[in-house]
Amino acid sequence: MKHNFNSGPSVLPKVVLEQTAQALIDFNGIGLSIAEVGHRSPWFVPVMEEARAIVKELMQLDDSYEVLFLQGGATTQFMQVPMNLLDNNQSAAYCDDGVWGSKAAKEASLFGKVNVVASSKDKNYTYINKDFAIGAENKYLHLTSNNTVEGTQWFSFPETEVPLIADMSSDIFSREIPFNKFSLIYAGAQKNMGAAGVTVVVVKKDFLQNLQRTVPTIMDYRKHIDAGSLMNTPPVLAVYIALLTLRWIKKEGGLKEMERRSLQKSTLLYNTIDSLPFFKTYVAKEDRSRMNAVFFIEDEALQNKFLDECKENGMVGVKGYRTVGGIRVSMYNALALESVKAICNLMKEFAANNG
Amino acid sequence: MKHNFNSGPSVLPKVVLEQTAQALIDFNGIGLSIAEVGHRSPWFVPVMEEARAIVKELMQLDDSYEVLFLQGGATTQFMQVPMNLLDNNQSAAYCDDGVWGSKAAKEASLFGKVNVVASSKDKNYTYINKDFAIGAENKYLHLTSNNTVEGTQWFSFPETEVPLIADMSSDIFSREIPFNKFSLIYAGAQKNMGAAGVTVVVVKKDFLQNLQRTVPTIMDYRKHIDAGSLMNTPPVLAVYIALLTLRWIKKEGGLKEMERRSLQKSTLLYNTIDSLPFFKTYVAKEDRSRMNAVFFIEDEALQNKFLDECKENGMVGVKGYRTVGGIRVSMYNALALESVKAICNLMKEFAANNG
Repeated sequence: MKHNFNSGPSVLPKVVLEQTAQALIDFNGIGLSIAEVGHRSPWFVPVMEEARAIVKELMQLDDSYEVLFLQGGATTQFMQVPMNLLDNNQSAAYCDDGVWGSKAAKEASLFGKVNVVASSKDKNYTYINKDFAIGAENKYLHLTSNNTVEGTQWFSFPETEVPLIADMSSDIFSREIPFNKFSLIYAGAQKNMGAAGVTVVVVKKDFLQNLQRTVPTIMDYRKHIDAGSLMNTPPVLAVYIALLTLRWIKKEGGLKEMERRSLQKSTLLYNTIDSLPFFKTYVAKEDRSRMNAVFFIEDEALQNKFLDECKENGMVGVKGYRTVGGIRVSMYNALALESVKAICNLMKEFAANNG
Repeated sequence: MKHNFNSGPSVLPKVVLEQTAQALIDFNGIGLSIAEVGHRSPWFVPVMEEARAIVKELMQLDDSYEVLFLQGGATTQFMQVPMNLLDNNQSAAYCDDGVWGSKAAKEASLFGKVNVVASSKDKNYTYINKDFAIGAENKYLHLTSNNTVEGTQWFSFPETEVPLIADMSSDIFSREIPFNKFSLIYAGAQKNMGAAGVTVVVVKKDFLQNLQRTVPTIMDYRKHIDAGSLMNTPPVLAVYIALLTLRWIKKEGGLKEMERRSLQKSTLLYNTIDSLPFFKTYVAKEDRSRMNAVFFIEDEALQNKFLDECKENGMVGVKGYRTVGGIRVSMYNALALESVKAICNLMKEFAANNG
């Protein structure tokens, strides 16, 4: 048995994989594969509609919001958000809270003026800088709710009159948060919501005002809304896997239950790290991500030995991000508590044998 | 048994669907799903590399070309091509050869000057207008090699000094053509090359000159080339299905064999149409698409009756595109000759019973 600690693409619920495999051979008994049906057919349209509806239900949002399933990954949203929302003479505020937030700010600067209102770059993004003010001239404030690479997470969100935008790629549907505080939320599916290849965008309709810029058709949120997320051929299979994953979240008990499990797994792991001086984490305690724990063994040879032992024990994806190094354990919704127990036991043994 | 005449997403080789279903449960015996492995892992990188290599091999292209697998569909390329290749003060020539080509020209006009050098709109795009001249001031000439909606296809390509760009979404890998005549080729995967959710872009490297415009990172072909098509998380599953489909094309005998089958299927269908005055096609004989046959029964009530009988006989996707109406039979690589025989038999019976 493998323990899949990948940061994304990552572990998926077994039942979702089995249902997808079945649908690839014969979708709902229609004699066709889910990959072979037309996206405007009576077979696929309900898939798209149900996926959009469950997103709204899990987020407890009303009809002032729209849900889109788009292609391109969250990285495309770094461009698409300012392209749709920011005119050249307007300003937007960005939190430089990690490598992804920093990239989002860089792309936005092609479309308008970017004010970096908070940064934690001074300490290698090992904390969330929550001490900042936002001028009312900003069209929006952008933050990254969970930083996959550095292992930090926002646990309370800024109180501000400026509309909030969040990249929730790596912690969406892992906890109950007041989604209605946000004017726009986006997330790549490949962590908590399915397979790589589709991105969900949730947007408050009245936030989409007219711009001076003509937005290319395929990038225009308003046109995607008008087309019910079927402007062009959507990534049919990825949307279907997202639907199955969303159904699984709902069936398991929704965001309340996902949060309970997430808290249980991450508490176990961080307690283990804290109890073993052999392992170090530089992330501020109050900002520790429940999704991605980033930590180190200071002796690099020993750290490599630990990574090797993880591999020998069927533990996958434990190596830190290339720019950060160290160890990273990702604990998304579909990761079993047993996997966290297994790595915690290995950590204890390893510290005892090598400490 | 279903006969799948969908225009895309469309019929896929059965073996590809079976292999994908298996890989979703356990990919190559590694104990993880293909949807759960990291895109930079030693499991996925060879998938991407082999897919890129087979595209180049099937097209018989040398190393002056690069192959990219990108997200967003061909519709995204309508924007991405001019964004990467056309400065605001430059011109590009477009063939208005169908609804998709017309949309491509419209998007390009956001980035530079568009010269529509040929159009067949005067006759509802029922022929390919091949009688035109292209000024040397044009940065490129864009055409759509096969028009899915209207059922026309280019069988010889313009002789010109201006670099050629083709949207080959609906006939890629269905025939042998001199791919090295083109400076850029793009195609959505969901017809002849796999499932929806990934688009192949083949580009001659020296065609990508510096622009005045700063291209957003995620849209920049040059940056995708530098990153080996792994700039951000690719649509892992869609790339894998494309690889399996490409392997299947190669194993079945490559483009020569795909063309032989395509000719056999389309000849049978068009001969049947021509032999039955009951069915009409308005497409110029020399431009008839081997991928998508578009035809009509003039009496609309009878046409609906025919469409109903198709449905009763397990024939899927036979209804014409919403703006064109009528009947459309798509005959992509994975469609069995038996399916074409089945619909030809139904057409003969129907004409005899209702003629």
